[in-house]
Amino acid sequence: MEINDPATLAEVTAAFERYEVALTGNDVETLDELFLPSAQTIRYGITENLYGIEAIRAFRKARPSQGLARSLENTVITSYGRDMAIAATLFRRASAPGRIGRQMQTWVRTADGWRVAAAHVSVIDEPA
Amino acid sequence: MEINDPATLAEVTAAFERYEVALTGNDVETLDELFLPSAQTIRYGITENLYGIEAIRAFRKARPSQGLARSLENTVITSYGRDMAIAATLFRRASAPGRIGRQMQTWVRTADGWRVAAAHVSVIDEPA
Repeated sequence: MEINDPATLAEVTAAFERYEVALTGNDVETLDELFLPSAQTIRYGITENLYGIEAIRAFRKARPSQGLARSLENTVITSYGRDMAIAATLFRRASAPGRIGRQMQTWVRTADGWRVAAAHVSVIDEPA
Repeated sequence: MEINDPATLAEVTAAFERYEVALTGNDVETLDELFLPSAQTIRYGITENLYGIEAIRAFRKARPSQGLARSLENTVITSYGRDMAIAATLFRRASAPGRIGRQMQTWVRTADGWRVAAAHVSVIDEPA
């Protein structure tokens, strides 16, 4: 299995960046588009456990649209073969000093483009 | 991309179950074996952010060997194609009432068997 095929990695990186812009801008339409429309799609969020695209979409609609800005660090995107990739990043929000967020996504290639099949977001105290 | 090819799903499910037995039994050798031996491998844990297999192995060695028992629920394993799969599960520990754990792993097929290329574990208050 080829790791980090350049063309694949470039595609996924572009999708990841598009997601980040949509997230911080609360562009719900794009967020919905970029998650795989499947009952198998899972998103573990900061305070919620969402199984299936319908639960994920309902959450997006109800999400507060303030305080979304964040800075990323230690972002690592790795593609495995041509059809899947993992994007992992830490993040910080000015409103939460001393805390660090972790976002991990598994992206899969579909006929419509790259989609998130699973995601897990959590926030912890800054490790010592 | 074929979702949940039965043979692939059976293989990954067996690997997932082997990991769970190793985790709760603190079988560090098997835990090390089942993570992809790569600098790209990432594990976000309950209180730590680990980049690369060396950091993950160092963490395992230093890990407490008590209080590891847990019960799983809402476990969903989904394979995408023949070479990758996502395993997501909630978990509870008797020592942490009112709290719920979330474990998400991305497994990839290698010549040596299925390996975890990325994992994220977190614990939150039970959602209302």
